Amino acid sequence: MPKKDLQTLKGFRDFLPEKALEREKVFETIRSVFQKYGFLPLETPVLEYKEILSGKYGGEGEKLMYQFRDRGQRDVAMRYDLTVPLARVVAQYQSELAMPFKRYQIAPVWRADNTQKGRYREFYQCDVDVVGSDSITADAEIIACINEALQSLGIKDVVIRINNRKILDALLQNSGIPKNKILDAMRIIDKLEKIGEPKVREELALLGIKTKGRQDLFETLNATFEDPKEISVHLEAVPGAGELAAVVEILLEWGIKNYQIDLTLARGLDYYTGTIFEIILPDAPQYGSIAGGGRYDNLIGMFTSPNPLLSKERAKGEVPQPSRKAMAGTAAVGGSIGVDRLLAALEELELIKYDLVSDVLVCNLAEELEEQYLAVTKQLRDSGIKTDFYYSPDKLDKQLKYADKKNINFAVIIGQDEQKKSEATVKNLSTGKQEKVKQKDLSKFLKK
Amino acid sequence: MPKKDLQTLKGFRDFLPEKALEREKVFETIRSVFQKYGFLPLETPVLEYKEILSGKYGGEGEKLMYQFRDRGQRDVAMRYDLTVPLARVVAQYQSELAMPFKRYQIAPVWRADNTQKGRYREFYQCDVDVVGSDSITADAEIIACINEALQSLGIKDVVIRINNRKILDALLQNSGIPKNKILDAMRIIDKLEKIGEPKVREELALLGIKTKGRQDLFETLNATFEDPKEISVHLEAVPGAGELAAVVEILLEWGIKNYQIDLTLARGLDYYTGTIFEIILPDAPQYGSIAGGGRYDNLIGMFTSPNPLLSKERAKGEVPQPSRKAMAGTAAVGGSIGVDRLLAALEELELIKYDLVSDVLVCNLAEELEEQYLAVTKQLRDSGIKTDFYYSPDKLDKQLKYADKKNINFAVIIGQDEQKKSEATVKNLSTGKQEKVKQKDLSKFLKK
Repeated sequence: MPKKDLQTLKGFRDFLPEKALEREKVFETIRSVFQKYGFLPLETPVLEYKEILSGKYGGEGEKLMYQFRDRGQRDVAMRYDLTVPLARVVAQYQSELAMPFKRYQIAPVWRADNTQKGRYREFYQCDVDVVGSDSITADAEIIACINEALQSLGIKDVVIRINNRKILDALLQNSGIPKNKILDAMRIIDKLEKIGEPKVREELALLGIKTKGRQDLFETLNATFEDPKEISVHLEAVPGAGELAAVVEILLEWGIKNYQIDLTLARGLDYYTGTIFEIILPDAPQYGSIAGGGRYDNLIGMFTSPNPLLSKERAKGEVPQPSRKAMAGTAAVGGSIGVDRLLAALEELELIKYDLVSDVLVCNLAEELEEQYLAVTKQLRDSGIKTDFYYSPDKLDKQLKYADKKNINFAVIIGQDEQKKSEATVKNLSTGKQEKVKQKDLSKFLKK
Repeated sequence: MPKKDLQTLKGFRDFLPEKALEREKVFETIRSVFQKYGFLPLETPVLEYKEILSGKYGGEGEKLMYQFRDRGQRDVAMRYDLTVPLARVVAQYQSELAMPFKRYQIAPVWRADNTQKGRYREFYQCDVDVVGSDSITADAEIIACINEALQSLGIKDVVIRINNRKILDALLQNSGIPKNKILDAMRIIDKLEKIGEPKVREELALLGIKTKGRQDLFETLNATFEDPKEISVHLEAVPGAGELAAVVEILLEWGIKNYQIDLTLARGLDYYTGTIFEIILPDAPQYGSIAGGGRYDNLIGMFTSPNPLLSKERAKGEVPQPSRKAMAGTAAVGGSIGVDRLLAALEELELIKYDLVSDVLVCNLAEELEEQYLAVTKQLRDSGIKTDFYYSPDKLDKQLKYADKKNINFAVIIGQDEQKKSEATVKNLSTGKQEKVKQKDLSKFLKK
């Protein structure tokens, strides 16, 4: 096969060691924070019955899903997101799972989407969800653990924008818009940052909101709050205002002050029913929201109760308003970190640390010294130092080039001269500085 | 959708939190050992061009591969193993990779195989390979790092069986067997443990090895060695004997004594060209070999040079014997850990530790105490303790049941009485023992 034919499919990527290592490290950090918050991992198959995976999306998802008929004549599809498999697991193992079910899943999904603009057909999602609790504490916990995960990666400036879908809903209803246009109006408000307030007002006018209605709406939406207590004052008797205040109070209780209440935050997805949030990094604004999520009490029940998302009301464009208490069994709140954007932002912020890779290369200058090389390699590895050994004697230059390609920090060089004195030359490959060290002290020396 | 229709495809599995956590922990341990040996991760796509993935396997693989035509009319297939993607990466990024290329990949593969006997259609492979070095040290390093990975998981008794394919090859050629029957003979010898020596002798006779030839063959094969130096004496001038001795000497240099030289070890796969090894756990013998591998200098070059595996000689059943030096660029040695068997063995050996899961549940007895609960939860999490908080006030019994389901070790209980004294009751859920502790001292108390 000629080399030019060797390629991955469009929208699919290889991650060579340096990148793959970054990813592993980032996932590990995120996992350890999620676990500290009592979340446990879940793994589901890449392939599932198509009928199950296509439950949620309707026509659009159907089109983007990788699907085929397997040799057993089953219609199968590749995982399209991590939420539908979660819904299946909750329905299928109801009696086995500890409820509320707190799980995270960091795994690839596949969409045969347009590949322009950094969109990939194979990409990772990183989801953390609580299923089966209508407690507002769960909402706060999702936000808190994603916030901490991002901070644990070294990001200093993390901003959490918070709102509650019910508030926007109520405000729009009060604005005099026809009920079946509310979702459209939300999508318009969602574009606020992108197209600006005048344009949004214009589009809302076209939807049928009168001048006075628009006036009142934006007066309320543009409010800012110093203290969560002001929320209930400003939004007296507006559904969702109490929930929003409660989430913020819990965050404050946990010492989390890097939030902004933003009543214009709408989040594109239709299925949110309460708290919504997104996280932006002011130091890397070009990546937009790095994470986001909210409460979605209607979705997880899709396999256990009639699917309200596919109901007649839904078809008419009305926003579902279930009682949270009534749906406690499948009440759910969750968040998702955009892994590709996060990794790009971490690189931009120079938070990817190349001390991730091997620490030391033990060079190989002479066959008759192999015994020493093996002993030194063992000494370093036994003390936990990531150590690479150059297998065959070769020019030192070539070996240092290898070290450079692998981002190795130190070279341990033992030639006949060093060997006579039981020493080694340790070369710092970033500064070029070198020092003689007794062979027996190498691991002690390199550990500092 | 009725609950009975909610299921995974045959041969596909969900891993609920407890199992998923075991797996994560095991993978993490393995990864950290591989990294200590200077191996770095590689990630390749799940879907690739079918033409690339089917390069190696011929008819059999073709049949078992999940393949379909995507919407762009490309013939695509799901990853069948981790070796062919490695070969593609080595060919495609030749100039970018540090050579020798030392990589590991722990990832799922898919085969539409018969699902009986614990075989799955979606399962993980855990591969570690060195590409581009013909040094025998690389062979030893692969064995050493897999050995250490298994020991790091807590397995005390690990036995490495080692041989060299060239020895078996030479011995069979000397036994007077027709050249085109050598691979068949190896497959028969591979069954030695399963069917016993008399039966193997019988089958070899049918292949055309005469009585004297069989006699000599088994006399040599059944030799045991106290010291690697005896190998070259016993197998004077037999190709591969020097390599075998050299591998063992390096292992000894590294303090690895848990090996057995076994000249009857054949390893089923056709593509090995030198060192072969497998690892068994005497305390869990029913799982057979937990890991294995060897040198395969002919395979990685499949995309850069004419594929010797598909050559005419190969078709005639002759074993390829390339010069190791000549193929240094694509010389390769690697090993693979059987993840499913390993996890089953770890469970059998009671090496799966349930202190993996959350440490503490902060119980919730009264809404008016929520502030205290949140503060205690934060205190514990800040000190790194995995802490779950029960979101809504409920009967203590129900909360302890939740803790039990999640394998949580301690419950922190604060009722009105405890609150008055700024105390908490800490209940050890495995012993039932409980103690009063000052709230401010909780993390200190629980850390020990």
